[in-house]
Amino acid sequence: MIKFEENHRPLILVTNDDGVEARGIRALREVAREFGNVVVVAPDSAQSGMSNAITVKVPLYLKKVHSEKGLYIFKTNGTPVDCVKLSLNSLLPRTPDLVLSGVNHGSNSSSSVHYSGTLGGAREGVMNEIPSVGFSLLDYSPDADFSAAIPFIRQVIQQVIQFGLPAGTFLNVNIPKGNILKGIKVVRQARGKWVEEFVEREDPRKQKYYWLTGFFQNLEPNAIDTDEYVLDQGFVSVVPCTLDITDHGAMEQLKAQSYEMSINGVV
Amino acid sequence: MIKFEENHRPLILVTNDDGVEARGIRALREVAREFGNVVVVAPDSAQSGMSNAITVKVPLYLKKVHSEKGLYIFKTNGTPVDCVKLSLNSLLPRTPDLVLSGVNHGSNSSSSVHYSGTLGGAREGVMNEIPSVGFSLLDYSPDADFSAAIPFIRQVIQQVIQFGLPAGTFLNVNIPKGNILKGIKVVRQARGKWVEEFVEREDPRKQKYYWLTGFFQNLEPNAIDTDEYVLDQGFVSVVPCTLDITDHGAMEQLKAQSYEMSINGVV
Repeated sequence: MIKFEENHRPLILVTNDDGVEARGIRALREVAREFGNVVVVAPDSAQSGMSNAITVKVPLYLKKVHSEKGLYIFKTNGTPVDCVKLSLNSLLPRTPDLVLSGVNHGSNSSSSVHYSGTLGGAREGVMNEIPSVGFSLLDYSPDADFSAAIPFIRQVIQQVIQFGLPAGTFLNVNIPKGNILKGIKVVRQARGKWVEEFVEREDPRKQKYYWLTGFFQNLEPNAIDTDEYVLDQGFVSVVPCTLDITDHGAMEQLKAQSYEMSINGVV
Repeated sequence: MIKFEENHRPLILVTNDDGVEARGIRALREVAREFGNVVVVAPDSAQSGMSNAITVKVPLYLKKVHSEKGLYIFKTNGTPVDCVKLSLNSLLPRTPDLVLSGVNHGSNSSSSVHYSGTLGGAREGVMNEIPSVGFSLLDYSPDADFSAAIPFIRQVIQQVIQFGLPAGTFLNVNIPKGNILKGIKVVRQARGKWVEEFVEREDPRKQKYYWLTGFFQNLEPNAIDTDEYVLDQGFVSVVPCTLDITDHGAMEQLKAQSYEMSINGVV
């Protein structure tokens, strides 16, 4: 189904959560093409907030929408994670050298990493032992301008191809809005949360319903080693993220609280 | 909307991803009632594999299905994360003392934690600074028998109420199938992955479609400090999980690779 002329080039899988037509994925795939053969497999509609979700209730379709030299584009009815799984198992001629997800229209810094379909796609890549990066621009507009972000995206891809990534680690790259970007900082995920409000309405059958809305709250605004802080300062943030979410520090504490106590009459 | 007679008791929010009718959530809510007033807010249908997904495309409905002394039950059309958000913001009379999710019908050990809607619900609890636990039984059957699990669920809840949990940490508790459980072990998440296969079929319109299937592969079967290992040995596994998924160890390594190099002409 997929065959590249220049077969020796790196194979790069590109996905996103805003859908195959989004400006962000177009920008990302064009940078990716500088480095290798590119296969885009992306949702046919927006899948924002889908996190690491997989589709188990309905079957997945995979449809080719375009191909040209060094590039294939497919769409699916699945989530970003589905796109990666389906590509690896049923589409690509070999394991890709890189999985790139994005560029998301909107921030995925701090705790947003947990809700992000963009980062779900990247996590699925590294789950399959492929170096993977999720990119997001801090601009939610469908018409967002990605041009200032491109040199930074290019640099991150170049670094990942050159050095690889530690096993089990993927990158969460967020890029400020605007034309004046100061550089790249490797930082940690800020502690933060979404403060939700629900808009309550009544439907024609007199049933109440709720729309999710809300705003992000940075819980450590003065921590200079965090993504939120450097983004505010105009830097691109690179957070290395781990598949192992064990809180290793808490293990001893829990053991000391006799969680491991045997149950009366059971042991 | 919600009012408890014995208002001094702890307030416990219970959710799951198998739906409000599942046997697992019935078992969990009954144990929870021993410790406090319980509000169940759960999906109206199965939301397995929904991870930390939130619903942004459709509005959420919230419907009371039952109430009795010390217990309210509601269902929504959302994900487990939606259930928690909606409860905290639009339903509960105050912040609950505990969020419990499950008991899931099927394992959420190792890397399954990333796909699990059950753990999504627990993560959302701790995101709101509430001690939170996800419970799963290693039995996928809708008719699974939760009776042997109950003393262990009770013990974990009792410990969490007594000691609390470290800030930003929630528990992933998995329970072996069967009647002979040996005790509880505090362990780390095993490295493992789902090896996927897709069943390929053709619909009446001659379009190919794919059903996701696959099996779990433990990548470190001899590591005795992991959830997979102790579950195989007949122990309940307790993995403390962190909201901060920064790979702190990788930060220095990435900095040394000059990720922070300035871009020509930009800085």
